[in-house]
Amino acid sequence: MVGGSNEAFIGAVHRMGATLDGQIDLVCGAFSSNPNKSKKTGASLYLPDNRVYGSFSEMIEKESGLPDDVRMDFVSIVTPNHMHYPPATLALDAGFPVIIDKPMTFTLEEARLLREKVRKTKLPFAVTYTYAAYPMIRQAHAMVRKGEIGKVRKVMVEYPQGWLTGKLEDTGQKQAAWRADPDRAGISNCFGDIGTHAANMAEYITGLEITEVLAELNAFVPTRVLDDDANVLFHMEDGANGVISASQVSPGEENNLKCRVYGDKGGLEWNNTDHNTLLVKIHGQPVRIYRTGVDNGYLEEAALIHTRTPSGHPEGYIEAFANIYRNFAFEVRKYLFGEEYNELMDFQGVDDGFKGIAMIAAVVESSKNGNIWTKVEN
Amino acid sequence: MVGGSNEAFIGAVHRMGATLDGQIDLVCGAFSSNPNKSKKTGASLYLPDNRVYGSFSEMIEKESGLPDDVRMDFVSIVTPNHMHYPPATLALDAGFPVIIDKPMTFTLEEARLLREKVRKTKLPFAVTYTYAAYPMIRQAHAMVRKGEIGKVRKVMVEYPQGWLTGKLEDTGQKQAAWRADPDRAGISNCFGDIGTHAANMAEYITGLEITEVLAELNAFVPTRVLDDDANVLFHMEDGANGVISASQVSPGEENNLKCRVYGDKGGLEWNNTDHNTLLVKIHGQPVRIYRTGVDNGYLEEAALIHTRTPSGHPEGYIEAFANIYRNFAFEVRKYLFGEEYNELMDFQGVDDGFKGIAMIAAVVESSKNGNIWTKVEN
Amino acid sequence: MVGGSNEAFIGAVHRMGATLDGQIDLVCGAFSSNPNKSKKTGASLYLPDNRVYGSFSEMIEKESGLPDDVRMDFVSIVTPNHMHYPPATLALDAGFPVIIDKPMTFTLEEARLLREKVRKTKLPFAVTYTYAAYPMIRQAHAMVRKGEIGKVRKVMVEYPQGWLTGKLEDTGQKQAAWRADPDRAGISNCFGDIGTHAANMAEYITGLEITEVLAELNAFVPTRVLDDDANVLFHMEDGANGVISASQVSPGEENNLKCRVYGDKGGLEWNNTDHNTLLVKIHGQPVRIYRTGVDNGYLEEAALIHTRTPSGHPEGYIEAFANIYRNFAFEVRKYLFGEEYNELMDFQGVDDGFKGIAMIAAVVESSKNGNIWTKVEN
Amino acid sequence: MVGGSNEAFIGAVHRMGATLDGQIDLVCGAFSSNPNKSKKTGASLYLPDNRVYGSFSEMIEKESGLPDDVRMDFVSIVTPNHMHYPPATLALDAGFPVIIDKPMTFTLEEARLLREKVRKTKLPFAVTYTYAAYPMIRQAHAMVRKGEIGKVRKVMVEYPQGWLTGKLEDTGQKQAAWRADPDRAGISNCFGDIGTHAANMAEYITGLEITEVLAELNAFVPTRVLDDDANVLFHMEDGANGVISASQVSPGEENNLKCRVYGDKGGLEWNNTDHNTLLVKIHGQPVRIYRTGVDNGYLEEAALIHTRTPSGHPEGYIEAFANIYRNFAFEVRKYLFGEEYNELMDFQGVDDGFKGIAMIAAVVESSKNGNIWTKVEN
Repeated sequence: MVGGSNEAFIGAVHRMGATLDGQIDLVCGAFSSNPNKSKKTGASLYLPDNRVYGSFSEMIEKESGLPDDVRMDFVSIVTPNHMHYPPATLALDAGFPVIIDKPMTFTLEEARLLREKVRKTKLPFAVTYTYAAYPMIRQAHAMVRKGEIGKVRKVMVEYPQGWLTGKLEDTGQKQAAWRADPDRAGISNCFGDIGTHAANMAEYITGLEITEVLAELNAFVPTRVLDDDANVLFHMEDGANGVISASQVSPGEENNLKCRVYGDKGGLEWNNTDHNTLLVKIHGQPVRIYRTGVDNGYLEEAALIHTRTPSGHPEGYIEAFANIYRNFAFEVRKYLFGEEYNELMDFQGVDDGFKGIAMIAAVVESSKNGNIWTKVEN
Repeated sequence: MVGGSNEAFIGAVHRMGATLDGQIDLVCGAFSSNPNKSKKTGASLYLPDNRVYGSFSEMIEKESGLPDDVRMDFVSIVTPNHMHYPPATLALDAGFPVIIDKPMTFTLEEARLLREKVRKTKLPFAVTYTYAAYPMIRQAHAMVRKGEIGKVRKVMVEYPQGWLTGKLEDTGQKQAAWRADPDRAGISNCFGDIGTHAANMAEYITGLEITEVLAELNAFVPTRVLDDDANVLFHMEDGANGVISASQVSPGEENNLKCRVYGDKGGLEWNNTDHNTLLVKIHGQPVRIYRTGVDNGYLEEAALIHTRTPSGHPEGYIEAFANIYRNFAFEVRKYLFGEEYNELMDFQGVDDGFKGIAMIAAVVESSKNGNIWTKVEN
Repeated sequence: MVGGSNEAFIGAVHRMGATLDGQIDLVCGAFSSNPNKSKKTGASLYLPDNRVYGSFSEMIEKESGLPDDVRMDFVSIVTPNHMHYPPATLALDAGFPVIIDKPMTFTLEEARLLREKVRKTKLPFAVTYTYAAYPMIRQAHAMVRKGEIGKVRKVMVEYPQGWLTGKLEDTGQKQAAWRADPDRAGISNCFGDIGTHAANMAEYITGLEITEVLAELNAFVPTRVLDDDANVLFHMEDGANGVISASQVSPGEENNLKCRVYGDKGGLEWNNTDHNTLLVKIHGQPVRIYRTGVDNGYLEEAALIHTRTPSGHPEGYIEAFANIYRNFAFEVRKYLFGEEYNELMDFQGVDDGFKGIAMIAAVVESSKNGNIWTKVEN
Repeated sequence: MVGGSNEAFIGAVHRMGATLDGQIDLVCGAFSSNPNKSKKTGASLYLPDNRVYGSFSEMIEKESGLPDDVRMDFVSIVTPNHMHYPPATLALDAGFPVIIDKPMTFTLEEARLLREKVRKTKLPFAVTYTYAAYPMIRQAHAMVRKGEIGKVRKVMVEYPQGWLTGKLEDTGQKQAAWRADPDRAGISNCFGDIGTHAANMAEYITGLEITEVLAELNAFVPTRVLDDDANVLFHMEDGANGVISASQVSPGEENNLKCRVYGDKGGLEWNNTDHNTLLVKIHGQPVRIYRTGVDNGYLEEAALIHTRTPSGHPEGYIEAFANIYRNFAFEVRKYLFGEEYNELMDFQGVDDGFKGIAMIAAVVESSKNGNIWTKVEN
């Protein structure tokens, strides 16, 4: 693992997700650019001292020299955005599969280069767009593909959060500080952090690409440099369109990603606050409440294989990460040992990662140019 | 009453609303442009035959000649959009106060003329934007005015309906038929019918004017002429902005107007599906659930005086109409007899009606011109 | 109308309900045992002075002497419990149909006598168990009768309120004062006021009689004489059973009547806080959300004819009263003029009223005798 | 681990819970009474062959002989009810701490003996009553203790499930089969399986003991021997009382444990379907929505230390198990190494386990004796 010291939030989530299903062990790490912090984190994770490294380059170099059955099998990168590309490239060059937190890179140029490298090396590569790994999003994706809501017309995605309502980045809160800083977060805070999830979800559920965007980014909190709020109209393939409204300055909202997709036969609604539910709205019929659960016979296989418990025993965020890691582990095994696995166990890859970065770039450009339609690079 | 034959939906709602509080009696009507239908409707309403008229002009003329204590006190107009202006003008010219269904007129030009006439005659004049009459919208309005959510930043209004998902207007359904017909509905169907409610609510709750819009209207159903879906970005006074997303082609959605307002201290959320609730979201605190009820001591007076029952005894749509009619009745009494009444019993007037028409015009213009920012006439 | 002065809550609700559909006019009243209050109330209702009476006996006597087309057609009784029986008997004796608030009488003996009189006179007679008049309760009743949930096994009814958490009756609050007073409320407060609704609902939806009860009544607030909380196990015909839990000392609860019925094929759930929804739970299928609305084609006729508005335009408590009054008006017209009407427009009559009183008696007896099974008189 | 072969549900949940926080490694197991199944399960868990045993007695014996730093530190027992006591006793006799699934034992006599043994050996001992480990149940417990809802009056716990609506045990479904079999489930199915959770929750949140019960057990499905439904009135210390309604034949219900506690100042409500929420209902105030999240400053420490993620990132059932295992691991470390830890990290122990068995016994006895009040052994 690269990044994810004891002070970071997302690193611990990745570790819990990775180990939940008993398919992956954490064997080594470069948990911080500060070697002391890295050592300390490694020790708290009961890693042997010689597998805790002072830098990612050291880790990749040393691990490469270990025997097959000892060496790490892949690299997980959970650093802030600006430190995604260097370790990813190095790992791929050394022949290690890579799983990386979203957004995939810091710049569109890095995204282009990384996509090229992944295509060339053909190594397994995943980007942890978490929400696509929730069982009910899999259910939604499968139902759209089967035509249950007909031809998709409209997509509404909202992602309100409230935690940056005040100027939290000035209080020393680490999560807020790096996100508000262009040198670490990149060209966008709100859209880059959460709007990208919203866009990914729109595309994942519908199976349609977003082709162009018209965006207005706002920085409502005085003196804040990057956006803390974003409203985006978008066009998709096949005449569908939609709206993304993302915000970090909506007081009282936690992490309320919500996605609605409407076709000419029916609609689907999913809400992160009630994430084990999918509302199915066939025109002219009562709305039906689909629920996760390995014993819910009406669910699609794509949903069932991303669920561990019977209905009414809630899974959540960590389990979604576990789904990604488990699927990725199977892909790594396929790569290493040729083992086939259920193809419904897919995950978001380098193309999705690239698309995320291209979306951020297009949104920022549209907003700067006076809220005009702007193509999204493909 | 002008319009509202037995076949119409909204006429019956107006009548129930008007009489609910025992302050208003229906005394006469021209219920249809078809005199037979008008007679039949009048009879079913137990009106004496001589007070049921074949046309609104006949009604206004004949009623004008009746003695003070017999003559109607005001005119209620519930005809389709294109027949709002003629009876309204005639009634005002004859000295009758007017209450009229939204949108106020068929064209912006009519709206300008009607506004001028109301200003000149100084007669009581109301437009039935229903939602502003719900107790919890009054509560929201009062709380914003008191500064409880701080300076308003962002407004999100959505209004999805699903009833026009198919081409209902081709089946003979009357409500769908006139709304889809430019000769009767005007330049917009979806935005003109429901988007206008959304815009009115954004302005009413915040007390801020919408100054410009950027809109994309869609007609998703093949061969439909007018819009059945609308996405609108808007700018308000004082730097606030927001999004309206309205739709008639969202299957499974009933009439799900929902409004969220976020300020720098807190947010408010109201949803027509749970219309007796207002969610109050002060930054850093647990969300609070405000509920209607004359016995809920924490509510603002503005909410309490638009409520009839204790908490847990739900009121609804008809009661909202009743609020408008009762408030308007007090205004008419003030006009006729000089009786003062609680000024919190306000209602939407000619300026709100004009603003609604101007919004529709600006939205249609923005959409036609390639989704560019367009000023809203004031 | 007997009772329902300006100070009373339920009288106004009855009046709004009675007049909502334009089928009933208030023509006279004895609104209070205090003639001055009665006059004042009558005046505020715009009644002619000579139709406002100082007592119910005066009203019944004088109205009896009026010509057919002037005289009141029926009597509505909305007094406190101990004053139900006398005016009801007098009215029936004078040949007037009666509609009366629940619980029907003060004592079981009165209930027996009144039932006998109604049976003998064959006059239309209604008890306003409001909840049975909600559209979705009609829907539930019809679905059970059609066998959609199979053989009924279990019924859970809860009715928590919080308004009597403190000793409100000592503050002068009128609603609380009479309910806490055995001389005016009778042998039970909580069960007699709201538990009776719960029991009525269990029987109405399932079509099964409650045959015996095992009850524990509590008076949690110190020095309160009558119960403010009740837990009741009950047995029904055909092997079904259930639980009623009613309370007036559940802080934060408004009027949260909720009923769930489970059969061997499926279940139904209705909740007064979301009263326009019925959850339909067929075993092995996703839960379906049935919603009121004259345009919801999947609803039973029994629901549709108790609805006025399209889906998403909420009706509520007053409209439920209006349903009872309208249905009762049709029954009175049938009685007076022989006009037939839709038999799905039923209402709760004297047998239901009697059963309610018998339930209260049995519950109180069971509780006094140490919580043992006690038969309910039929 | 004893029990938990690949075919069992709860074993996998225990394993995921145990390892989630990186404090516990699975080192050995006797996963089935069938040695082949045990070996197969062990292999799939990547355990070395020599640590997978054919029986729990073999496991305890062999592990006892291993060196300190290799030997298992404690035993987790996840077998069906009738196989809880033997391995627990053997493990305790061999000096191993024990964590065991609920209900603790098969009979009340076993429970008495086990309690005695735990008291004598003073070894760490836990029973996995999962719900007490949810963050919001910790929050509720802490708030009651601080007096925020005042003196507790009434507790309502419901636990409807629908999965046994049909005779699932006859289809070969393993979960249903053992629960319906008195030889494996004991004297009660529904109350023993889920009613015991309900009772535990009532006691845990309020801090009050249930002293006596009045119960009616039902077996609604024809020919089923054990109860599939239970209604229980109960009395607690200090004059509080309540109702438990548990069912496995409520179609459409998943696992809908819901608990409401009402005191003389306020109430609390928790629902497993929305388990990251606690509704706080202070009398006379709007209901407040408390939500899990390490960043929700208004939460009690007792809730925060059982949470891993920020608000809006849902945790669930597996994380609740992880809380129990983590707390138990700290207790084992305290026992082994004397390390102190936060005393808010408590867990349900042998007294809670005993109480659970005593409740089941009293409920069954009350039901058999005609639904009379029956003391619960302490």
